[in-house]
Amino acid sequence: MSRFCIGIDVGGTTVKLGVFEDDGQLLRKWEIPTRKEQQGVHILPDIALSVRHTLEEMKLDLTDVLGAGLGVPGPVATDGYVPRCVNLGWGEGYPARDLSLMLEGIPVKCANDANIAALGEMWQGGGKGYNDIVMITLGTGVGGGVVIDQKIIAGRHGLAGEIGHTHVRDDETEYCNCGSRGCLEQVASATGVVREAKMFLASSSKESILRDIEENSLTAKDVMDAAKAGDELAVEIVDCVCYYLGRSLAQLALTIDPEIFVIGGGVSKAGQYLIDNIQKYYEQYETLSENRPLVGLAKLGNDAGIYGAARMVLD
Amino acid sequence: MSRFCIGIDVGGTTVKLGVFEDDGQLLRKWEIPTRKEQQGVHILPDIALSVRHTLEEMKLDLTDVLGAGLGVPGPVATDGYVPRCVNLGWGEGYPARDLSLMLEGIPVKCANDANIAALGEMWQGGGKGYNDIVMITLGTGVGGGVVIDQKIIAGRHGLAGEIGHTHVRDDETEYCNCGSRGCLEQVASATGVVREAKMFLASSSKESILRDIEENSLTAKDVMDAAKAGDELAVEIVDCVCYYLGRSLAQLALTIDPEIFVIGGGVSKAGQYLIDNIQKYYEQYETLSENRPLVGLAKLGNDAGIYGAARMVLD
Repeated sequence: MSRFCIGIDVGGTTVKLGVFEDDGQLLRKWEIPTRKEQQGVHILPDIALSVRHTLEEMKLDLTDVLGAGLGVPGPVATDGYVPRCVNLGWGEGYPARDLSLMLEGIPVKCANDANIAALGEMWQGGGKGYNDIVMITLGTGVGGGVVIDQKIIAGRHGLAGEIGHTHVRDDETEYCNCGSRGCLEQVASATGVVREAKMFLASSSKESILRDIEENSLTAKDVMDAAKAGDELAVEIVDCVCYYLGRSLAQLALTIDPEIFVIGGGVSKAGQYLIDNIQKYYEQYETLSENRPLVGLAKLGNDAGIYGAARMVLD
Repeated sequence: MSRFCIGIDVGGTTVKLGVFEDDGQLLRKWEIPTRKEQQGVHILPDIALSVRHTLEEMKLDLTDVLGAGLGVPGPVATDGYVPRCVNLGWGEGYPARDLSLMLEGIPVKCANDANIAALGEMWQGGGKGYNDIVMITLGTGVGGGVVIDQKIIAGRHGLAGEIGHTHVRDDETEYCNCGSRGCLEQVASATGVVREAKMFLASSSKESILRDIEENSLTAKDVMDAAKAGDELAVEIVDCVCYYLGRSLAQLALTIDPEIFVIGGGVSKAGQYLIDNIQKYYEQYETLSENRPLVGLAKLGNDAGIYGAARMVLD
């Protein structure tokens, strides 16, 4: 009776792995280091070995496993092809096929890490019970994943869900990592929130508890906490960040129109306070219908990836 | 042998109808007036009667017909439910079910008119040969349709593809019909192009052949023609319009990432000149990958709707 699935989320530093029941119950999770040396040639064999060990410990066999899902930090085309994965040292290829060969031929599917996180949140997280979700992850960068009818929309060139690099601000003077100017990521990532805070602090003479924090150790959490505590300048900063996020949500509602937006990543730890502030501008820029996608918080944290990777197996 | 399908595109003034072979060949097309009086109660019976007459003339029977597709000018939810169709006088309901009852129970599917136009262009128009297209129609307004894996993405609240009402301009002072300010439609619809032209003419002292045209009779075509002829001011106007269109395409590439964008509607009659100008800004704002969705022209004109409506039957 094969009813287990394996979720694997390959990050730049560690590989997260999980063994799941097909109903979404996480039985075991663990991590191994990501060995990037020699063009990342060790990554897949390390994963295969570690999966075999763990299954043995759990008294399971590969024949009990429906398959494995593999999330990688980079674009993946609809067919599972990975054009190149700079973060892992990989050249072009089909890692899913190679991992399958190392695991006695069990089915392996490959997808982008932001996309599997969205699928994971749909399965067992903030989007549970919905079929169409757009997840936005406010972390070091801003990632996105689009799931329609319980399936990842990867895009024909692996660009779908790259919401962090949509243009939101015309008068931006600095360049984003992507080479463009005015990307959502420049404002709404954890890094972006801090940058925004520094700009507000520099251009305003208002008192603020943020001025008591040494500039180089200022975090997005500091800004959110100060705003929640009623610090006027911090409220202005959060308002600015939420203005761009709310507008972006409106844009996504008017193009993809999912059932729910799920907001995750470090910045989302500000919780309902953040959601309420986003909602204000979201409603202001989506005026076609009051019957619009919901906005909620992600629930799986760093495990979203292994959940989604495992969920891919069930299609 | 059922192998025919019927495409019906209900507009505010006329209903367009077509009988197709299942390979996409259009055998017969015709129009009837849209009778909107008495809350549009006559529209579906008129369609049913007209379909029966035409099939009789063609020596076909309803048993030869696989089904009919019905496009309506308003939002339609994923399940074919029409929340309300102000343009037709209809209240809430399932017109597809009712039309089916009037046509001896043949299957009838219902979708939004902009969405069926996109499906039609995918089937036999500018998107032929592709499975994932986003169509943008630059007409009186700006409409949009998203097709992924040969299927319309209608959205959970019927908002998908409402690209014309995404926010593109921060310093817009006038309100859009939707109640928001700075919508793409305000700049890039036929009406928008003319409005833009009037603003440029008023604020600039440059000579222009557009100044020879009586202001109230100025059209988007005049502006496009003047720009193609090298009129400096007209070139600036078209550049401004294409800046917002190009940025919007980049945004769509970074969220949905189709194979191709298909540009239709009256403004698109400017042809490759328009596409080239859009492409410039599209590339500037999508810098993640040079492997990005193509941009092409629609080919079916006003028939796109009946093509797409008929194509819905084949799913």
